[in-house]
Amino acid sequence: MRQRRPARTPNAIPQPPFGQVPRGYEPIRVLSDDQVEAIHQAALTLLETQGMRVLNGRALDLFRQSGARVEGNMVFPDAGLIEERLATVPPRFRIAARNRAKDLRFGGNDMVFASVGGPAYVMDIDRGRRDGTLQDMQDFLRLCHSLNIVQQESGGPLEPMDLPAATRHLDLYLSQITLLDKSWQLNALGRERTMDGINMAALAMGWSLDDLARQPMMMGVINTNSPRQLDDPMSQGLIALAEHGQVAIVTPFTLAGAMAPVSLAGALVLQHAEAMFGVVLTQIVRPGVPVMYGGFTSNVDMKTGAPAFGTPEYAKAAQASGQLARRIGVPFRSSNTTAANALDAQAAYESMMSLWGCLMGGAHLVNHGAGWMHGGLTASFEKLILDAELLGMMQSYFRPIAVNDEALSLEAIAEAGVGGHFFGTAQTMAQYETAFHAPMLSNWDNYPTWQARGSEEAPQRANRIWKDLLTHYEEPPLDEGIRAALEDFVARRKAEGGAPTN
Amino acid sequence: MRQRRPARTPNAIPQPPFGQVPRGYEPIRVLSDDQVEAIHQAALTLLETQGMRVLNGRALDLFRQSGARVEGNMVFPDAGLIEERLATVPPRFRIAARNRAKDLRFGGNDMVFASVGGPAYVMDIDRGRRDGTLQDMQDFLRLCHSLNIVQQESGGPLEPMDLPAATRHLDLYLSQITLLDKSWQLNALGRERTMDGINMAALAMGWSLDDLARQPMMMGVINTNSPRQLDDPMSQGLIALAEHGQVAIVTPFTLAGAMAPVSLAGALVLQHAEAMFGVVLTQIVRPGVPVMYGGFTSNVDMKTGAPAFGTPEYAKAAQASGQLARRIGVPFRSSNTTAANALDAQAAYESMMSLWGCLMGGAHLVNHGAGWMHGGLTASFEKLILDAELLGMMQSYFRPIAVNDEALSLEAIAEAGVGGHFFGTAQTMAQYETAFHAPMLSNWDNYPTWQARGSEEAPQRANRIWKDLLTHYEEPPLDEGIRAALEDFVARRKAEGGAPTN
Repeated sequence: MRQRRPARTPNAIPQPPFGQVPRGYEPIRVLSDDQVEAIHQAALTLLETQGMRVLNGRALDLFRQSGARVEGNMVFPDAGLIEERLATVPPRFRIAARNRAKDLRFGGNDMVFASVGGPAYVMDIDRGRRDGTLQDMQDFLRLCHSLNIVQQESGGPLEPMDLPAATRHLDLYLSQITLLDKSWQLNALGRERTMDGINMAALAMGWSLDDLARQPMMMGVINTNSPRQLDDPMSQGLIALAEHGQVAIVTPFTLAGAMAPVSLAGALVLQHAEAMFGVVLTQIVRPGVPVMYGGFTSNVDMKTGAPAFGTPEYAKAAQASGQLARRIGVPFRSSNTTAANALDAQAAYESMMSLWGCLMGGAHLVNHGAGWMHGGLTASFEKLILDAELLGMMQSYFRPIAVNDEALSLEAIAEAGVGGHFFGTAQTMAQYETAFHAPMLSNWDNYPTWQARGSEEAPQRANRIWKDLLTHYEEPPLDEGIRAALEDFVARRKAEGGAPTN
Repeated sequence: MRQRRPARTPNAIPQPPFGQVPRGYEPIRVLSDDQVEAIHQAALTLLETQGMRVLNGRALDLFRQSGARVEGNMVFPDAGLIEERLATVPPRFRIAARNRAKDLRFGGNDMVFASVGGPAYVMDIDRGRRDGTLQDMQDFLRLCHSLNIVQQESGGPLEPMDLPAATRHLDLYLSQITLLDKSWQLNALGRERTMDGINMAALAMGWSLDDLARQPMMMGVINTNSPRQLDDPMSQGLIALAEHGQVAIVTPFTLAGAMAPVSLAGALVLQHAEAMFGVVLTQIVRPGVPVMYGGFTSNVDMKTGAPAFGTPEYAKAAQASGQLARRIGVPFRSSNTTAANALDAQAAYESMMSLWGCLMGGAHLVNHGAGWMHGGLTASFEKLILDAELLGMMQSYFRPIAVNDEALSLEAIAEAGVGGHFFGTAQTMAQYETAFHAPMLSNWDNYPTWQARGSEEAPQRANRIWKDLLTHYEEPPLDEGIRAALEDFVARRKAEGGAPTN
């Protein structure tokens, strides 16, 4: 039986069309309401009694002016202040993409799948792990454009080491805007990088910064330095985003046993306190600005201190984090993580634990949704394809089973008869083309056929798929005037020296 | 930091101890209550109006005597009969193991992880896929004994082709009883194989058949021949199990698009009807006998007709099946499945989809929990280890996060200080040995270390683990009188010719 696929990219790889599918089921609750409340109250107590260190004068002033107790660079916001400021956070928001047909909904039952952001290295099975280049970065971005299940680019998949550190972000932004027509994230490390991203987003649309504030496009990850510290570059990034109506994704990196308590509940208390602290700062800067609550609690290998990902603890923490974020009404960001060194079974099962953890935890954004390897140090071309397959499976899973008279199939069952089969029933003939999820990477040949066709395993299939996608990539159209304005901006900012480097 | 593991087998592989961990969270509900009811009512209508073919005179008589309409070999039980008979099914039961410390609880939030049962072939990465032998079967059973997370053996991991088909089951039963001290399942294909299993279970304990009926030990899978047929050998097996107070696991094999409607709801209607039909027959034979509702709905690849497993449809169907089983109060069996041909990422992600589907669907028994490859045609030694890792992760996930004053960790957070770390806090020092799940197969080395140690991927690690377990295997003790009685029984039954073969 041959199947006409539901949609095709211009290339040969079958894919469902671009689009968000709401989670059709209630999130898993790993904590009782009382337990959520206990963690929330402990986090409030932590902020009020132990406080956060803030290494940025502007942020200290903002907290002081809003009524928080500030002593030196320590801020001790009380529960009243926190809860008052949390009340202005919007529970849902919309992010514009360059192609407005690819705008994204955040909040409620909607979820967004973003590609990997931030690794130092790049990898594929032909060339191994290596320092990345502009060419690698652009190829990765082209694949993010080509993969419909990747709904947002996540702020740069790898460091292009052939470019100067101070201006690399400008090449990234220009590449994101020209090679993709989807939503992209910026690099929020310091005010300059953040403002360059915001300015280029406005240029890309021909909008003013006021237009952009009315319809946000930019999102950036703000990591706290756990435990209990918000550093200067991240403070700058957060403030610049919030001032301009753009979205800070406030994400403590609370590895239980290392930067956070060995007790998961304690790691969640610390995460919740730090996330609330950052979220509150955005609302002090600009009440009502959209913002996200990032959960990244995982654990370390207690034998070595090495970070572990996609563990049972990770899945539980992700689902608990979703409950905590819903408790305070802030849209929730989680991630697709693994510590695996190869594109093997471990990479798949750790990513699956992560995805079930975060998606059934009610995540509204899966950062690092596709391409993350080596605990976040490496962007992998084959992992990008593997994760696209996993995200596609999860998206199909989230479409509820249709139950109606036709679907209940009493006629089809009568037609097939006792001991018969359903290949030829009228129902099957009408529905077989779109009835089931069509995979991209999975191989369902029987064993002798699979052997006869070369015994190709998942990494080799993934390698073939990304090369095929790259061969068939077509750059999305962009107005030439806008392209010129963006190039002028980049040239001017490069001449000015770009952004400070550490 | 070195970790003293929470428990050790006699060999070098760290494992948590044997024991069931209840699912700490509510199952996922993929259907609304109305949808569950619609499927249930459609299944009742199907049984009453279209009926089931039964190829066994005794079963036809039993249905007739219980008031069902019977025409030729077609049985049309009405809703009143079905619901009356379902009312006597026990919601929970306990299965005795040879080592009573390994007895198993079925029902409620308890779940049991069983090894693979039924494949024709055996495989490992050294020797490839091949016909199995008694030696292979016994080695596989030894590993099931050694792996604490495998809580029940599932009725024979592979066909020992070096033994005659008519008496192979006797060698299996003797091997199960002598090589394992855990619970095991029998092969319910016909009355002889079923009764041999029941008699040998009683002999193994020095019990009478009445003792065994009071405390069941035996379980066996009863597959309907979907659509709408119960064949003669399976009828015999079901009746023999129920007569003796043992557990039939009634499992339709409803592949959507092949033996069941292409519509998932329709496949579930057919599954539900056939499962209820078999369950009801057990209650007619012996009211109150424990029984299980098996769900095995998956889909086929509509391009080729090949069965697909661990798909999004499989996960949804498993969770819907759990809701249907709970609707009628029958403990629920599901499975860990994959169609992958290699121990690659696909094998892992399809198994993970299966496990999240079935365990968060409220499965009380995961048959084929460990070792299933090639859509069930092959028992793999490395897949056994991979699945043991996945089951171990799921078991850890099901332990809820502890939330209490100590766990909330405000003291530990104060002790670590701003920007500090938690490696040396009193809390970490007290808890690090057991705080986190310790994996068996996962490798968390950083990439350069992993490369320096030989770049070993998951299949090679799994291969090393099963060989190590086998090297360190110790046969559990068995009373010599019981061993002699079992050997006499097997010799006598072999002399009698064993069981009919097809």
